Amino acid sequence: MSDAPTLHQDPRSGNCYKIALTAALLGLPLAVRNYDIMQGETRTPDFLARVNANGRIPVLQIGERFLPESNAACWYLAQGSALIPADRFDQADVLRWMFFEQYNHEPNVATLRFWLRFVGQDKLSEAQKAQIPVKRAAGDAALRLMDDHLARNAWFVGEGVTLADIALFAYTHVCEQGCFALDDYPAVSAWLARIAALPGFVAMEP
Amino acid sequence: MSDAPTLHQDPRSGNCYKIALTAALLGLPLAVRNYDIMQGETRTPDFLARVNANGRIPVLQIGERFLPESNAACWYLAQGSALIPADRFDQADVLRWMFFEQYNHEPNVATLRFWLRFVGQDKLSEAQKAQIPVKRAAGDAALRLMDDHLARNAWFVGEGVTLADIALFAYTHVCEQGCFALDDYPAVSAWLARIAALPGFVAMEP
Repeated sequence: MSDAPTLHQDPRSGNCYKIALTAALLGLPLAVRNYDIMQGETRTPDFLARVNANGRIPVLQIGERFLPESNAACWYLAQGSALIPADRFDQADVLRWMFFEQYNHEPNVATLRFWLRFVGQDKLSEAQKAQIPVKRAAGDAALRLMDDHLARNAWFVGEGVTLADIALFAYTHVCEQGCFALDDYPAVSAWLARIAALPGFVAMEP
Repeated sequence: MSDAPTLHQDPRSGNCYKIALTAALLGLPLAVRNYDIMQGETRTPDFLARVNANGRIPVLQIGERFLPESNAACWYLAQGSALIPADRFDQADVLRWMFFEQYNHEPNVATLRFWLRFVGQDKLSEAQKAQIPVKRAAGDAALRLMDDHLARNAWFVGEGVTLADIALFAYTHVCEQGCFALDDYPAVSAWLARIAALPGFVAMEP
């Protein structure tokens, strides 16, 4: 494949940043195409027909094929690298943390960041406002589980960085924008610093 | 490994059934250990300390190691089989549908089944009741997206069954227990029949 994959992204999205960080840590070139999700640019008829019928970014474009879902895109880029362990249990364990991220972490930690920082509390629907305490408790439970694991392990799986760490880093390192307190999670904070010190690390756009 | 893996499960859970179905289609032996989630049996101190700190089933036990997250457990069992394509894009595309399942499908289709069939509408909290129309619309959107894909493709990825189909089959085939109407999704219905006709197929416990 001669052309670099293209990341269809909104640079404010942690899900998009995961893919950019994976490419950077692996030294892979990546083209980008930006959208403003606040302006509905991922819900246009053209986007739905051509890029992702689910109306969401990120989508990784490889030639004329389109791959939605952030963690699947990271998997595409990282196949054959040390970010995906070859060991049978460890490989499944990386996916275990990536599914945990999408089920227990992102819908709470990322959604509160989106609601409180980008939408604004006064613009939320009543149904959304009723979900804030539910998502606050569930997000703190996810961060607590991570902190307990990282108090005993430097990385989520094995002895080095894997996609599990990249997936969980994306929204954890900006969780204070959703009013979560990193000071409550010292092992998480130390792990965030280990990731930021990795060769090739790139920061999320501010 | 001489001993079969042990599936820690509640047999009413579609997430647990995915793993049993994967093992059955592959002809792999699987031991089971049953829990009653309605009685809090996955929240006991012993379960949290030894099996899964997240307090959830399924967990796949391999020797003395424990693997939570249904789709990660399926991945463990299916590595090296045709249920996981070796092709780089197709392998990531299988994961794309598995992440879609956990993010867009299960929290809506499975949760409404759990609330309406097992908890009972009269026992739901006000916050849960307020979520019913939200989850109804999101679940129907997920089923619609599946139906559009299956109107053009016999399987989710490539030319045969993969883990993407197994993951999405689990809660789709019982979606009417959450008051979703399969008649609205003819391509989904035809695909359900294709899966039920696979050699080695086992039904979910009634």
